[in-house]
Amino acid sequence: MNNLETPYLTVDILIELIDHPQRPIVLIERKNPPHGWAIPGGFVDRDESTERAAIREAREETGLEVTLKTLLGVYSNPARDPRLHTCSLVYLAEAHGTPVAADDAINVQLLEPSAPLPQLAFDHGMILEDYRRFLSTEETAPLRVV
Amino acid sequence: MNNLETPYLTVDILIELIDHPQRPIVLIERKNPPHGWAIPGGFVDRDESTERAAIREAREETGLEVTLKTLLGVYSNPARDPRLHTCSLVYLAEAHGTPVAADDAINVQLLEPSAPLPQLAFDHGMILEDYRRFLSTEETAPLRVV
Repeated sequence: MNNLETPYLTVDILIELIDHPQRPIVLIERKNPPHGWAIPGGFVDRDESTERAAIREAREETGLEVTLKTLLGVYSNPARDPRLHTCSLVYLAEAHGTPVAADDAINVQLLEPSAPLPQLAFDHGMILEDYRRFLSTEETAPLRVV
Repeated sequence: MNNLETPYLTVDILIELIDHPQRPIVLIERKNPPHGWAIPGGFVDRDESTERAAIREAREETGLEVTLKTLLGVYSNPARDPRLHTCSLVYLAEAHGTPVAADDAINVQLLEPSAPLPQLAFDHGMILEDYRRFLSTEETAPLRVV
C-alpha cells in the first residue's frame, strides 16, 4: 500500500436556489489560482464521505445548507486541472436562501438555466453543458474514455 | 497543495457477459486480504481517467475487454475498506467471452441476476443490491450521507 498515488478527489456542487425564479445555480469567483468563475467545490477530506464533503464545501463557500439530489457525473480527465490530477464528483443540490461568498470564494453570481455561460475555470463549462442537458433530458453526464 | 490527503480512488466494474444466458456478472476471488469474493476492480492511477482505469482493471483481473455502459454510483463511506479510506466508482460494463482469473484474482465465478448473493468483501454486497435494483428500475445507486 506504500507509494500508492491515485487522483486527488474533489466534489463540485450545482446548487439550485429554489426560492428564486427559474431556479438559478450559484457560481463563485475563486480566491486562489486559477482565478475566474467556477462551480463551488473543493477537496474531499480523508475519512469523509463524498456526500458529506459536498454539503460541507457548499456551506463553506456559499453559506447555504444544501440538500443533495443526485450525482450528475464524474470528471477525471488528467488534463482538467492545470495544477494536479483531480477527479471531481459533481452533485446536483438545492437550497433555500441566498448565497454569500466565503472561504475560497470572493464573490458569487446566480446563473439562470437560459443565461449565456460565462467563461469558467477548469472543465466547468463542459460540466454546465452536461447539467443543462440533464435539465431537459434527465440524462446524467456521459462517460468519457479519455 | 502540500499535505493534501484525499480518499484513495478506486473503480469496480460490474461486467455483464452478453454471450451467456441471463447475462451473468463476473466475481473474482481476491488474492490479497481481505480474502473472499468481490467485484473486479482496483486503484485508479495518477494521470489516468477513471474510465480508462475501469477498462484496464477489468482486463487485468478477468482478461475481458469491456465496454462501459453507465456509472452505477459512488461508494465512499470511510468504513467501507478496513485498510484505508477508499472511494469507489462503480461502473456497469459488458463484454463478450469468458473471464479468466489473473493479476489480483485467483478465481472467477459467474453470478446470474436471480442467484443468491455469496458472501462478499467490503461493501460489495450492498453494491450488488444496488445493481439488482438498477436492473429492475433503472435507478442508479442512492446518495448516502454517512
